Amino acid sequence: HDYSQRRFFWSRISMPQRLSLGFLTVITVGALLLMLPISYVGGRDHTFMDALFTATSAASVTGLTVVDTATHWTTFGQTIIMILIEIGALGFMSFSVLLFTATRRQMDLRSKMMVQEVYNLQSLYDTRAVFGYVIKLSIAIQFIGTILLAPFFIHDFGWGRGAFYAIFHAISAFGNSGFSILPKNTAEYVNQPFVLAIIAALVIAGSLGFLVWRDVLLYQKTHRLTLHSKLALVMTGALIIGGWLLFELTERNLAFASGLSPVMRVFDTLFMSISYRTAGFTQFDVGGLGSATILLTMMLMYIGGTPGSTAGGIKTTTLGVLILQTHAALRGKKDVTFAHRRLTQENIMRALLLVCVSLVFLGILSFMLMLTQSHAANHGLEYVIFEVVSAFATAGLTLGLTPHLTTFGQLVIMLAMFIGRVGIYTVMFSILNVHDEAAPYRYPEESVIIG
Amino acid sequence: HDYSQRRFFWSRISMPQRLSLGFLTVITVGALLLMLPISYVGGRDHTFMDALFTATSAASVTGLTVVDTATHWTTFGQTIIMILIEIGALGFMSFSVLLFTATRRQMDLRSKMMVQEVYNLQSLYDTRAVFGYVIKLSIAIQFIGTILLAPFFIHDFGWGRGAFYAIFHAISAFGNSGFSILPKNTAEYVNQPFVLAIIAALVIAGSLGFLVWRDVLLYQKTHRLTLHSKLALVMTGALIIGGWLLFELTERNLAFASGLSPVMRVFDTLFMSISYRTAGFTQFDVGGLGSATILLTMMLMYIGGTPGSTAGGIKTTTLGVLILQTHAALRGKKDVTFAHRRLTQENIMRALLLVCVSLVFLGILSFMLMLTQSHAANHGLEYVIFEVVSAFATAGLTLGLTPHLTTFGQLVIMLAMFIGRVGIYTVMFSILNVHDEAAPYRYPEESVIIG
Ligand SMILES: [K+]
Ligand SMILES: [K+]
Repeated sequence: HDYSQRRFFWSRISMPQRLSLGFLTVITVGALLLMLPISYVGGRDHTFMDALFTATSAASVTGLTVVDTATHWTTFGQTIIMILIEIGALGFMSFSVLLFTATRRQMDLRSKMMVQEVYNLQSLYDTRAVFGYVIKLSIAIQFIGTILLAPFFIHDFGWGRGAFYAIFHAISAFGNSGFSILPKNTAEYVNQPFVLAIIAALVIAGSLGFLVWRDVLLYQKTHRLTLHSKLALVMTGALIIGGWLLFELTERNLAFASGLSPVMRVFDTLFMSISYRTAGFTQFDVGGLGSATILLTMMLMYIGGTPGSTAGGIKTTTLGVLILQTHAALRGKKDVTFAHRRLTQENIMRALLLVCVSLVFLGILSFMLMLTQSHAANHGLEYVIFEVVSAFATAGLTLGLTPHLTTFGQLVIMLAMFIGRVGIYTVMFSILNVHDEAAPYRYPEESVIIG
Repeated sequence: HDYSQRRFFWSRISMPQRLSLGFLTVITVGALLLMLPISYVGGRDHTFMDALFTATSAASVTGLTVVDTATHWTTFGQTIIMILIEIGALGFMSFSVLLFTATRRQMDLRSKMMVQEVYNLQSLYDTRAVFGYVIKLSIAIQFIGTILLAPFFIHDFGWGRGAFYAIFHAISAFGNSGFSILPKNTAEYVNQPFVLAIIAALVIAGSLGFLVWRDVLLYQKTHRLTLHSKLALVMTGALIIGGWLLFELTERNLAFASGLSPVMRVFDTLFMSISYRTAGFTQFDVGGLGSATILLTMMLMYIGGTPGSTAGGIKTTTLGVLILQTHAALRGKKDVTFAHRRLTQENIMRALLLVCVSLVFLGILSFMLMLTQSHAANHGLEYVIFEVVSAFATAGLTLGLTPHLTTFGQLVIMLAMFIGRVGIYTVMFSILNVHDEAAPYRYPEESVIIG
């Protein structure tokens, strides 16, 4: 009876609305907790917008900040931020999976698109098993990360702070959040390959997504990978290596690498390639890098990680499908194939549409900020566009605009982070709340000329 | 016998190759003519790259220039440029239509995509009639434009130069080329509504494309418009009015309009909305406009005009299909409909793919320029990106980079103009020269997760 009442309540609210509302609730509770006097360092100028922005950035694992995470917040406040990151990385998706099992009704097309956006649910029957698996695997990886990071941080900051730093950065790195409570982000470890390597490994682990992990770990038993995992792994590898080589090229003049040995420089460029695309940890001031580097970084952030992971962006698989479709069209092939499988038309259409819609969205948000934010004369358009792309892709790098945003500007960036994490379709479906329509009749076909 | 030999020769070269080679030939001949001593003003520093760049810009109706058109060239040189514009606007497309009728073989998918790119050929049987129609209509419009412009230019510059200016600008405006031989582009007519109105009308006429014109003029007889014409007209109207209102908004601080009456200011904003998207005539220094205006201009240039017209960009119909598809997806509708017609899946796929491929292309070209061009410290990334978008969309506005390009940079911008005019698919098919493949077997279907 209690159960059926709950079911009735949930059935009144659509799946996309549940997800958006649940996420909003997490952010609001987080912001209220960050308003507590024990959360921030006394004597500071502290507004509710600061707390709300930080909670949104943490729960969406973006990493853009209007106040300095290391000095503005107390250990209690930093713990709240850490928990918001963990909820954003794992809880939010699992929550939606659980909600789905509770209702168990047939999914319509809309819900299918939306659930695909947050989680792989090819077989919906083992949802609870998947949920348990996600939590266990994530905590295991984060635990290993903490143990590996601890010696370095304890050496530098003592037992108490060192241990806390290790936990915080393991969670932050696996969650691809980019939040750091080190005084200078990861800049002080620019010459410490081990710390950078551990963080990079955690970032990759988080950005691959649970389905890929499950596939890889079960490979011994199943001897097969899904098409999704194959494409995601190939694209992730190509993006890391391609980004690495291109960063080597764009920063070949060594302007950023003064004081670095040649080996460490190559290692730092690799770290940039891994971290900039999804996590947003940086050893350098991004604004000091060359214009080609900034353009490349924007492109990598826009692409982002793999679906069902802690990373944002349009996703590696979307880019993969786009490349495969282009290749097929240029070769005069009707079938778009990869690894002896044919991609569905619906799949391809969805990928292409996502690119187009997200770009229109980014264009509109950038336009709104350019109209309203005071614009230093020595900054180009990228000063605004970079920040919007970074927020939408939940990457979290900045050219410096975010701390100077007006309240309206903060709301725009928060909207970008929110939509970037929840998914552009999910948010739109939440607002529109429409259902699949069976058309009473179909119009005759006709083409227009394209391009 | 002569005819069959010609047929044999042409059948060895694919349609896309014929188009690209034909266009290359026009550009080369134009560049050689512009190298003649009677083409340029004596005592000038004049290189083959200047001539080649100008010929490419004219034949692709772009309007970007490395030398000042008004002062660098003699009347003979300006006449060559005018003829190149006319060939680019009309001849190039008609040439391809004629070539097509000469071979009369069944088109494969590749050729269909390519021919659609340059001309509407829904019914291929009346090609010669269409060709004649195109030429007659264009010359009639240009003639009316010349007659209307002549009084103003003759009044200001005397009979000889005035008449030449009228012919040049009628051709240049109808061709959406943006070339001007007035000492200050159209800046001296910033307070002359009639001259601006005539140029704007010619620009719109050229950017609508021949099919739309034919549809509209034959409406009395047929009492129907094609889906293509309906969508093109709706989108063109929406873009002109939307651009106008947004330019009013972005330039509300009046920084650009000192000395203009309120009415002329509104009129000049309307002229911006009409001209910036496709033609590139400007009364102002674009670099002096606000950052929101520059972003908006880039977006409008990228969209461009209607297929089969003298304008470039991804085209109004492509944007229309994208909007319709997004609307349908968000409404949970499987059919994408407009004006009681259902768009084909192939049509939608082509539109979405064109957007994605063109953006990747723009990104790569911008990246190449950022790596190689010396970059003034007070310029943002838009200094390069604006120029690349302007060249690809054959719009021709500039933030000032083009005259400072290195030879490599000039080659990149020339490539963008060439591909922008010929069509991205046509150029790619020319290089790859592949044929439709009948797959011997099909792989099983599988999906990946998107977004
Ligand atoms: K991040
Ligand atoms: K133009």
